Amino acid sequence: MMNGSEYIAGLKKLRRKVYIQGELAAAPMEHPLVRPSAAAVARTYELQRQPEYEELIYAQSHLSGRRINRFTHIHRSTDDLVKKVKLQRLLGQETGTCFQRCVGLDALNALEITTFEMERDLGMPYHQRFNRFLQQVQDENAVCDGAMTDPKGDRGRRPHEQADPDLFLRVVAENREGITVRGAKAHQTGALNSHYIIVMPTLAMKEEDRDYAVSFAVEADAPGIIYILGRQPSDTRKIESHPADRGNLYYGGQECLIIFDDLFVPWERVFMCREHRYSGRLVERFAGYHRQSYGGCKVGVGDVLIGAAAALAEYQGVSKASHIRDKLVEMIHLNETLYCCGIACSAQGRLAASGTYLIDLLLANVCKLNVTRFPYEIARLAEDIAGGLLVTLPSLRDLEHKEIGPLLKKYLQGVAGVNIGCRLKMLRLLENFTLGPAAAAYLTESMHGAGSPQAQRVVIARQADLDHKKRLAMKLAGIGDEEKD
Amino acid sequence: MMNGSEYIAGLKKLRRKVYIQGELAAAPMEHPLVRPSAAAVARTYELQRQPEYEELIYAQSHLSGRRINRFTHIHRSTDDLVKKVKLQRLLGQETGTCFQRCVGLDALNALEITTFEMERDLGMPYHQRFNRFLQQVQDENAVCDGAMTDPKGDRGRRPHEQADPDLFLRVVAENREGITVRGAKAHQTGALNSHYIIVMPTLAMKEEDRDYAVSFAVEADAPGIIYILGRQPSDTRKIESHPADRGNLYYGGQECLIIFDDLFVPWERVFMCREHRYSGRLVERFAGYHRQSYGGCKVGVGDVLIGAAAALAEYQGVSKASHIRDKLVEMIHLNETLYCCGIACSAQGRLAASGTYLIDLLLANVCKLNVTRFPYEIARLAEDIAGGLLVTLPSLRDLEHKEIGPLLKKYLQGVAGVNIGCRLKMLRLLENFTLGPAAAAYLTESMHGAGSPQAQRVVIARQADLDHKKRLAMKLAGIGDEEKD
Amino acid sequence: MMNGSEYIAGLKKLRRKVYIQGELAAAPMEHPLVRPSAAAVARTYELQRQPEYEELIYAQSHLSGRRINRFTHIHRSTDDLVKKVKLQRLLGQETGTCFQRCVGLDALNALEITTFEMERDLGMPYHQRFNRFLQQVQDENAVCDGAMTDPKGDRGRRPHEQADPDLFLRVVAENREGITVRGAKAHQTGALNSHYIIVMPTLAMKEEDRDYAVSFAVEADAPGIIYILGRQPSDTRKIESHPADRGNLYYGGQECLIIFDDLFVPWERVFMCREHRYSGRLVERFAGYHRQSYGGCKVGVGDVLIGAAAALAEYQGVSKASHIRDKLVEMIHLNETLYCCGIACSAQGRLAASGTYLIDLLLANVCKLNVTRFPYEIARLAEDIAGGLLVTLPSLRDLEHKEIGPLLKKYLQGVAGVNIGCRLKMLRLLENFTLGPAAAAYLTESMHGAGSPQAQRVVIARQADLDHKKRLAMKLAGIGDEEKD
Amino acid sequence: MMNGSEYIAGLKKLRRKVYIQGELAAAPMEHPLVRPSAAAVARTYELQRQPEYEELIYAQSHLSGRRINRFTHIHRSTDDLVKKVKLQRLLGQETGTCFQRCVGLDALNALEITTFEMERDLGMPYHQRFNRFLQQVQDENAVCDGAMTDPKGDRGRRPHEQADPDLFLRVVAENREGITVRGAKAHQTGALNSHYIIVMPTLAMKEEDRDYAVSFAVEADAPGIIYILGRQPSDTRKIESHPADRGNLYYGGQECLIIFDDLFVPWERVFMCREHRYSGRLVERFAGYHRQSYGGCKVGVGDVLIGAAAALAEYQGVSKASHIRDKLVEMIHLNETLYCCGIACSAQGRLAASGTYLIDLLLANVCKLNVTRFPYEIARLAEDIAGGLLVTLPSLRDLEHKEIGPLLKKYLQGVAGVNIGCRLKMLRLLENFTLGPAAAAYLTESMHGAGSPQAQRVVIARQADLDHKKRLAMKLAGIGDEEKD
Repeated sequence: MMNGSEYIAGLKKLRRKVYIQGELAAAPMEHPLVRPSAAAVARTYELQRQPEYEELIYAQSHLSGRRINRFTHIHRSTDDLVKKVKLQRLLGQETGTCFQRCVGLDALNALEITTFEMERDLGMPYHQRFNRFLQQVQDENAVCDGAMTDPKGDRGRRPHEQADPDLFLRVVAENREGITVRGAKAHQTGALNSHYIIVMPTLAMKEEDRDYAVSFAVEADAPGIIYILGRQPSDTRKIESHPADRGNLYYGGQECLIIFDDLFVPWERVFMCREHRYSGRLVERFAGYHRQSYGGCKVGVGDVLIGAAAALAEYQGVSKASHIRDKLVEMIHLNETLYCCGIACSAQGRLAASGTYLIDLLLANVCKLNVTRFPYEIARLAEDIAGGLLVTLPSLRDLEHKEIGPLLKKYLQGVAGVNIGCRLKMLRLLENFTLGPAAAAYLTESMHGAGSPQAQRVVIARQADLDHKKRLAMKLAGIGDEEKD
Repeated sequence: MMNGSEYIAGLKKLRRKVYIQGELAAAPMEHPLVRPSAAAVARTYELQRQPEYEELIYAQSHLSGRRINRFTHIHRSTDDLVKKVKLQRLLGQETGTCFQRCVGLDALNALEITTFEMERDLGMPYHQRFNRFLQQVQDENAVCDGAMTDPKGDRGRRPHEQADPDLFLRVVAENREGITVRGAKAHQTGALNSHYIIVMPTLAMKEEDRDYAVSFAVEADAPGIIYILGRQPSDTRKIESHPADRGNLYYGGQECLIIFDDLFVPWERVFMCREHRYSGRLVERFAGYHRQSYGGCKVGVGDVLIGAAAALAEYQGVSKASHIRDKLVEMIHLNETLYCCGIACSAQGRLAASGTYLIDLLLANVCKLNVTRFPYEIARLAEDIAGGLLVTLPSLRDLEHKEIGPLLKKYLQGVAGVNIGCRLKMLRLLENFTLGPAAAAYLTESMHGAGSPQAQRVVIARQADLDHKKRLAMKLAGIGDEEKD
Repeated sequence: MMNGSEYIAGLKKLRRKVYIQGELAAAPMEHPLVRPSAAAVARTYELQRQPEYEELIYAQSHLSGRRINRFTHIHRSTDDLVKKVKLQRLLGQETGTCFQRCVGLDALNALEITTFEMERDLGMPYHQRFNRFLQQVQDENAVCDGAMTDPKGDRGRRPHEQADPDLFLRVVAENREGITVRGAKAHQTGALNSHYIIVMPTLAMKEEDRDYAVSFAVEADAPGIIYILGRQPSDTRKIESHPADRGNLYYGGQECLIIFDDLFVPWERVFMCREHRYSGRLVERFAGYHRQSYGGCKVGVGDVLIGAAAALAEYQGVSKASHIRDKLVEMIHLNETLYCCGIACSAQGRLAASGTYLIDLLLANVCKLNVTRFPYEIARLAEDIAGGLLVTLPSLRDLEHKEIGPLLKKYLQGVAGVNIGCRLKMLRLLENFTLGPAAAAYLTESMHGAGSPQAQRVVIARQADLDHKKRLAMKLAGIGDEEKD
Repeated sequence: MMNGSEYIAGLKKLRRKVYIQGELAAAPMEHPLVRPSAAAVARTYELQRQPEYEELIYAQSHLSGRRINRFTHIHRSTDDLVKKVKLQRLLGQETGTCFQRCVGLDALNALEITTFEMERDLGMPYHQRFNRFLQQVQDENAVCDGAMTDPKGDRGRRPHEQADPDLFLRVVAENREGITVRGAKAHQTGALNSHYIIVMPTLAMKEEDRDYAVSFAVEADAPGIIYILGRQPSDTRKIESHPADRGNLYYGGQECLIIFDDLFVPWERVFMCREHRYSGRLVERFAGYHRQSYGGCKVGVGDVLIGAAAALAEYQGVSKASHIRDKLVEMIHLNETLYCCGIACSAQGRLAASGTYLIDLLLANVCKLNVTRFPYEIARLAEDIAGGLLVTLPSLRDLEHKEIGPLLKKYLQGVAGVNIGCRLKMLRLLENFTLGPAAAAYLTESMHGAGSPQAQRVVIARQADLDHKKRLAMKLAGIGDEEKD
């Protein structure tokens, strides 16, 4: 089973077309904008060597019975679901950013359940194909990108109504060997750090959109795939010659637009083709699993942010002020509320037909809807505690300047005795979370990742049995059914 | 095992000193202010006959191996903890009010763990005594009142510093047969519906307050106990000759001040006597269990309130307006967030030394802190949907008046075809929850029951490992320990 | 000019058909459910004798030049608008409830502007008639009820689409002497304390609903008018023999349904008849003035509630705890934010065609939308500070009982030295605001009075110039108009 | 009177020691990190030529009677105070960032009142000196930096208790010509764009800290002053060769640390020297004026952000979705609530002894406390509307690439017919506000500028007359003073 350095080495061998800020990247894995994000994924391999996390990072494959990395595992119990969340919190704590591997895991689980149903109902070998791919992923300990979100063009229109039919990814041709697809997938977190790209449709499709109801997996360097790296706040600090102002010195995130320029996919890797009736449930399950995920990973990042605020309070001499303590408690409270949601939708998971455990869909959506709110408030409170220096701090390079370095050290000293560097580095870390590259993951991705808040509201409305609640009220109010007509 | 009607019959036989609104009540169980609250407790017996709830309402005694009502059960697994929450949600849905039986259950579990530790550490037979009492409660299927909150006098002072030493309940005498105690316990929900009163201290005590570190159980009609019923909003509607304006036609709450006027307690029922070192952990555990409880019962009441709002929206012709749907989704979201907290602190429960499962203390406190907020917002949204008629509606007796009855029916008609009574009864039910007697339970008790919000914040601060979070941040910021000095 | 006792005496002479809880009231002004609300109105007369408030309570009539009570004044400057808000805050502070006189004032001002426009545009003598009525009101120092809200039936349908055409008040007949109207007006705060009823339409009307576009004034005891008093939370405490549990010992609110059972109105008092094009602007102006009002009166009530919470904190020994101080600051902050909105929409008022000053409509709606939120949070914080005793306190009559009175006094003592009655009365006052009759005014009326929150949102959307904001953004983003096509 | 280009030309002539990211800047005004911030200040000159804003941008000097730029004016009426807020909102709308000139204006007004009092009370010529300086500023139409915030070191200690006495700026020497000061001022927004630096103390000082109670003005290029530019999120995008990803193409912010390295100040420019009793009131007034300011400028920036979100909704085809409309209304509502606070504290301003109008201190602090909250929520809602592309969008340079440019244009197309550039530029503008350099001003500066939230809470607690509120409550509860003892 692959380990961390083999992982990075393997990625370097891929022959991909990658564009970064207007240029074709010769060696993308060595690009300073990419490296920290690969390092975050590599943590998911390095944990394999830490015995204290054995129970979290390993699972037993239901296919082969072999010990596998949990990020390739199909959940066979609520305990598996709970451990997933705990593993995510741990990695969020360790990397302080998105470690990118959940999206593939969530895609695998959603496909496992849905291909089973399609094979059962339609007699098509989707599940067999999927299981062969799954076993390969497990054996290789591979990273998969789960690619769902289409560009969508005019969001008021369905796929076939768009001015350009390619604004949702679709099957444009088909022959005995396989299918050809065209389109793009946006917001692909960690795309460059993946061995496989798993494509799924983005919506419940209707008959007239059946060409869009397609799911498959391909090697990350299959011909026809183009990657364009997205920008992030303060991204170029990773490029600056001096690392001082980066904040998080080791890890970072990454977002790509992936273009599928008439990509050919052999049938063996096609898991859904024009099965529009199954498109909606695949989306709902993937989204459900991924909304659960946020109850783990963002909580872990939240832990680091709370820690950064608490450390700054100490360095600046305010850790005993009652209003500071109160804000820290509030941050913890909000963060743990998210964790409660992650745990609850896992503990209340239920068995799907394929033998796999699905999270409780209502609670997973409740989880994610809270994630679209609380991290913003946690970040706001962190900025409150940090003080204005957060956005007025000179470059840490100034500290090394022979004339002004000593002056800066004199005037930016906090509590006497605390190394001035601690304060300044911690401010940069906190800035990274609230206004820097990690804010893209901790805030904006918390808003839109796994679906924007309105998507969660729609599922909550559908999953909550409002009629049952009405009947409860009618009973206590003494309203009998006879009175209704 | 006792059933519902035997339960009520049994309570009537008790010979207690009960004062209601300035008068000694001859037959308190028949008093209209008390009856609806006893009916709510009786539901916990009636569920025993409903096979669909068998798994929730019954458990197996770890003492006798016999099937017992779960409200007398000591939790032996996280599954037991989760079932407790589900049972509470169910009963909240069925009664729309506090069904009063959790407080005793929570007291039993907290005492089971703590008496075990005291007997193990101190060699005093507290656990033996407790287990004999517990078995009796299980065999009788008895209702216990868990009495913790002292009047407290000047809240800035410790027990022994109070001007009147009785403002916290204490041991005033002791002999070979037992102890004599004096003091009072406030906010005793459902006190009049209990067979036993279990007294616990209200604070972690210090050496100088050791007389206050006392816990015991007594029969509800033991001589020396005086009950004084508290008032609640709109309580006298239960007394009015016509039931129409009550809102909840069947169930209600109850709060008493219990005065212990030199009550004698035999040693056999004394579970803690002057063990001030164990007082804090008993309080923390009872509070923890009780804070978990609110993640079940208040969610159930929330379900009814949401149902009432949804029904009113329908009766009034606005159920399809997007802002109404959005408010209902928000209410559901908040309510399910509370449920997530209830489930999570249960699923993450851990084994105590006695073999009993304790909830996760951090998450249980997070649960309760959310309960001090979300029901208020749910109630606000319910009032928004209900419309102003909620507080301007004439008495439902006016509807029966021969002259104005027909006029009222004409002018208060909502959507054509819906029986006018549905709308008006539903408004009264919703009023009951947000401004009437159930508001005392759904709002104010959500605030202060099981400890006021500040109590939860203190535990959250203590339970969250802030140093661990600081270390996480320091690692990512590249701050080594060498830099700290 | 009438004073307070003349005012009450005058009301007693009215011969009205008033129903209270299913019975025709012989002497409504002496009914204990009505008296406290009349006392609140009477305060608006008594202020006339307090020289320190002269500038607030008096204004100079623009018709007669005479000194009049400001509650009958047409605003002639932004200073008048600001003084109105200050007078309202003062009276909210003095009565702790709704003093009911603003609704008439707001109706007078909205009609003054709109009748002017109708007379100018249509040549109908609406303004002349209105001014004669206005002068009478000013000379008499009369109380007017401004009656706008129709029962509305199915809220998804326009007036003429209702199953019963009378669910909105309408002109059913017309002759040379005047018109006959039929319908009802709901939520009429203080209806029984008014000399005149001023009726206005409740919506912008279309051509097909022109019979509903009617406005007029009538004597409060005109034949054909029926009043039915609404219930409020804990209303019957006002009836109980002992005043102790009332909370607010002197003042209270009142809500009526008024039925117009084929009421005849002479032309001299008809201010709008089937002018559907002017209906919307009359509604918008009345609502705008009334939404401003809430930035005064509710702030005054909020002051008392904050004071009650602060006093209780003192009586209970927690006034120095930092979390208590922090909650009081938060309550003040929210309350003063409302005041800011009340002041701002007044200070930014603008001149209407008739010479009258209209509030800034956008800001007045912003004001009211905040009023639908902040009082609920202030009330929640007040309950947090008050403690659980708020809903478990025995009847104050129990305090006088010879056996339990002394025990209660012993056990409910707060900080030593503070008279026990202070604490208990203050708890009852706070209960009155958050769960009792004043909660109907401070909370539910804050939600729905002067229009429900969605009504404010609609006006805000219309009044905010979103296109201007888009242009600002386009300019800074460097987007020229050429790029738009 | 100086105009915009003269202004920029003038600044270039200053001979200052400026460090930017570790290097001494030869021509700071031409540095790409500085230029956009000078452009924002220049707008305050350019407005002078726009007749439609004449009333806002010009005022009449109370010293000379001449027409002056309002940013140098001493407020002589509440109308002046209101116009200040309107001018600030206008400039916020025009620049989308901090235009930096208010801080000097607020310093001038606070000093005008306080030097008057010192001269009156102490007989020292502080006011005469100040007025001569003021007239010069008015005549020159100069920009002043108001420098208050000291580095503060250990925030738990007073100035003289710090390990390094220079952590607060202080007088270190004095002779017949003047004084010598040492220390630093942090968070100096727009320092490099100012002609004069006005220094004020940062705290109410006590006797033992009297050396720190010092205020004066100096030329911006006086020897002994060192400027070190702070970093901001995504600041280096301003340096990138291609302007595309900047967001706001024209304007930006700036923050400096200013070090006063034994600076000499002649007596003529010393406005307070060791007058510790007057230090607190100077701080309170400056902070009060500056907290008012935020009710103008941030509202203007909010207008642009709302416009950006509304434009994006249109470009992406969701502008008619009810949840999007609802979010826009909420953003407007919050923004206008801030404006209400800015207007109200101005309209309620009061006359100080010197003849100058001071804002209402309570309401100005309420204003600022809301500013520490609502912009964060407005930004969160803006990110919700914008969609995930906000943080995954490739560099706009990619759009020009010959291979991927056409693909990007194909796949990032929103509503058909809208130029693709509109959408992408608008996303960059919105990113600038919520996560880029403008976020430093719109969010973090909203939190900490003019004092952190806790500072506002302290003033609110002091300014609100809690005793008066308690008396109001006691009156209604029937609690007489006799009962208090």
